[in-house]
Amino acid sequence: MFKKLLIANRGEIAARVIRTCKKLGIQTVAVYSEADADSLHVKWADEAFLIGKPRVSESYLNIEKMIEIAKETKAEAIHPGYGLLSENPTFARRCEEEGIVFIGPNANVIASMGSKIEARKTMAEAGIPIVPGISFPLQDVEEAVKTAETIGYPIMLKASAGGGGIGMQIVRNEEELRKAFEGNQKRAASFFGDGAMYLEKYIENPRHIEIQLLADHHGNCVYLWERECSIQRRHQKVIEEAPSPFLDEETRRNMGEAAVRAAKYIGYTNAGTIEFLVDEQKNFYFLEMNTRLQVEHPVTEEVTGIDLVEEQLRVAAGERLGYTQQDIQRNGHAIEVRIYAEDPKTFFPSPGTITAFQLPEGEGVRNETAVTSGIAVTPFYDPMIAKLITKGNTREEAIARMVQAISHYQVEGIKTNIPMLKEVLNHPAFQAGHTTTNFISTHLYKQSAK
Amino acid sequence: MFKKLLIANRGEIAARVIRTCKKLGIQTVAVYSEADADSLHVKWADEAFLIGKPRVSESYLNIEKMIEIAKETKAEAIHPGYGLLSENPTFARRCEEEGIVFIGPNANVIASMGSKIEARKTMAEAGIPIVPGISFPLQDVEEAVKTAETIGYPIMLKASAGGGGIGMQIVRNEEELRKAFEGNQKRAASFFGDGAMYLEKYIENPRHIEIQLLADHHGNCVYLWERECSIQRRHQKVIEEAPSPFLDEETRRNMGEAAVRAAKYIGYTNAGTIEFLVDEQKNFYFLEMNTRLQVEHPVTEEVTGIDLVEEQLRVAAGERLGYTQQDIQRNGHAIEVRIYAEDPKTFFPSPGTITAFQLPEGEGVRNETAVTSGIAVTPFYDPMIAKLITKGNTREEAIARMVQAISHYQVEGIKTNIPMLKEVLNHPAFQAGHTTTNFISTHLYKQSAK
Repeated sequence: MFKKLLIANRGEIAARVIRTCKKLGIQTVAVYSEADADSLHVKWADEAFLIGKPRVSESYLNIEKMIEIAKETKAEAIHPGYGLLSENPTFARRCEEEGIVFIGPNANVIASMGSKIEARKTMAEAGIPIVPGISFPLQDVEEAVKTAETIGYPIMLKASAGGGGIGMQIVRNEEELRKAFEGNQKRAASFFGDGAMYLEKYIENPRHIEIQLLADHHGNCVYLWERECSIQRRHQKVIEEAPSPFLDEETRRNMGEAAVRAAKYIGYTNAGTIEFLVDEQKNFYFLEMNTRLQVEHPVTEEVTGIDLVEEQLRVAAGERLGYTQQDIQRNGHAIEVRIYAEDPKTFFPSPGTITAFQLPEGEGVRNETAVTSGIAVTPFYDPMIAKLITKGNTREEAIARMVQAISHYQVEGIKTNIPMLKEVLNHPAFQAGHTTTNFISTHLYKQSAK
Repeated sequence: MFKKLLIANRGEIAARVIRTCKKLGIQTVAVYSEADADSLHVKWADEAFLIGKPRVSESYLNIEKMIEIAKETKAEAIHPGYGLLSENPTFARRCEEEGIVFIGPNANVIASMGSKIEARKTMAEAGIPIVPGISFPLQDVEEAVKTAETIGYPIMLKASAGGGGIGMQIVRNEEELRKAFEGNQKRAASFFGDGAMYLEKYIENPRHIEIQLLADHHGNCVYLWERECSIQRRHQKVIEEAPSPFLDEETRRNMGEAAVRAAKYIGYTNAGTIEFLVDEQKNFYFLEMNTRLQVEHPVTEEVTGIDLVEEQLRVAAGERLGYTQQDIQRNGHAIEVRIYAEDPKTFFPSPGTITAFQLPEGEGVRNETAVTSGIAVTPFYDPMIAKLITKGNTREEAIARMVQAISHYQVEGIKTNIPMLKEVLNHPAFQAGHTTTNFISTHLYKQSAK
């Protein structure tokens, strides 16, 4: 096992990685920007280095600075967390070149899954179901109309350079498609500098369900069941749970086996997640692969009893997985909510100084954060300031514990999404498990941006 | 199930009971003394009533006031927590008389286990091993010498009216016994107004291991495994864990079955605990029965997944246990430490105002407390201000998580026993599982009082 590890990230995920390192007796090196000097990840690490100004481009995305500090401190490995450099193939490659272990798959695998079109092609080759659509840009509106007829309406028209919901439009017939195509193409060309357009089947009331994978360097790969991540705002997850209230055992197993097949096909190693869209008939379609730890990994840890960060480190150190698929448990039900420093109605970030901060406690309650009272939430980073996870023997118990824990959550000085989370958690549709990706706009309020 | 419940207790255990009530949709009524107005249990309850001055005799021990509030608020049941009125048969009887459900066994059972001598006799009748000794007061020193010869040295000489280590002396031969007897008898007569003396076999390097029981009103009784509670200071537990690192499966099962036999013999209902002393050869002896929830119940909850407060309420409402002995799981390992507001060397209470309070977080970490920053710890009550519980797949993992969590525990403004807890947790003898009741005096420092 490694003696020393650098964490090339910030906030709660850096704190999370440090905890597992301490458990395993691994020394930790933290990095921080000028905006993060008071973060708990800085306090908890054995060593901590200022890496630059608040802007990520001048701090957490500075590859050469990360490498330099790892070499100076003799860190043998780097954990990239999520976001930031975690799916940057250049970073992974620079680590490889310098003989530093990058905690994740190799740079080529990261690169191949980084391009959505590339990833889709690869998965189709591997025999994984993908959403029917095209994997090359449409020439013109006539090609769009012809393709749409083959796939069948409704159709999602997409700008290649878009993402996170931007540059997408649902069209339900030829007339709508003709109207949308040229306008969207022009807008994409002017906004993104790239007018390439794609089409795919639009799935009605879809669910976002993902499979957690673990693969070692000895050919072993297992799935750690699924996470239901349908509750989203602005196409970003806010509530996740395991298991999914929607899946049956057969679909769950089929999805897990498909994910393992996909991972083996691309020679995947370390922890990874395959995201699927699942339609109302429980057909599932490959959406994308995340080649790093997910924000919502704790719900999987709660139901399996497996420390995913520990597994990442062990696999990266060359160890074999200590269990087979049959050994992996699934006990009880876990839910995670993401606490964002944002206006609960508009979803605009709400930076400021936290004047009071108190975490809920008790049976089945897990907190993850790196903020404390007195800390300033700056506008430079993702506004997620904490995660709250509850566990119960049943979904009902996990929800009851979450409803209560969140009612005891105290954050003063900034706005948070806690009121919105409470609305979802107390909504009969959520409690009945009717979690589709359009839940918030359907049941709570129209989102200001699409 | 009850619609409304009064919690006749304070602090963390009142908060604990409220959480389960909220989970089950039961309305809660809290009571508080003038010293506890800011406690979280007051904040979290649906209704809260001031019951008197800080002194327990003028507040939390006021039986008629409790009954009055229960009747006024139409609470159908009362949870007594631990300590205070929880093992007071008069209180249980008054509840019965008023048609209020007392969450615990009936008054007669409480009374029968409340007298140590009575309990010991009853257990011997039930065929439960007891520490060899006598159950009637010694006439004189000659009778003491004769009895000691039958039992065999070393012997523990005890004053009937003593307790918590007071009025006890170990004697290793006849000479020591003769010397000790008359002096102790005189001192007991003058200190306690009762000179009655008893003898029992002294167990060398004993462990304190207890069995958690649950019994319904339909004849079903199960054991929820054991808790190892040997780490004590001044004969009070400070660290507890489940399972015990000392027991083998056979002894564990034998102890569990003996405890169930004992409970059935006395017609026990609700949650209860049988405490045993276990000697170096794994012989176990009945010590006492606690007819209420224990402080350390969370470690059992963590390894079994069973909410003990919920089970107490269900049983009291007349429900049947929903499982048999075979269904009860034992997963992983859990440790609890008690955070006391006290000097870590002298164990003297350290009242004062908490100026900063921050709980540890993360995977496998559970907090239980009713204090917050700004709260005054008063000298009127037990100085325990919080409990910290960690869980892991193995004892090693649970300890590693505890060591880290406690290093992140922040309490300012008062002294706490956290430095002592750290010493125990980091001690090789603790890590190796050598947990005997004399651990602290053997491995850390002599205790100032015996």
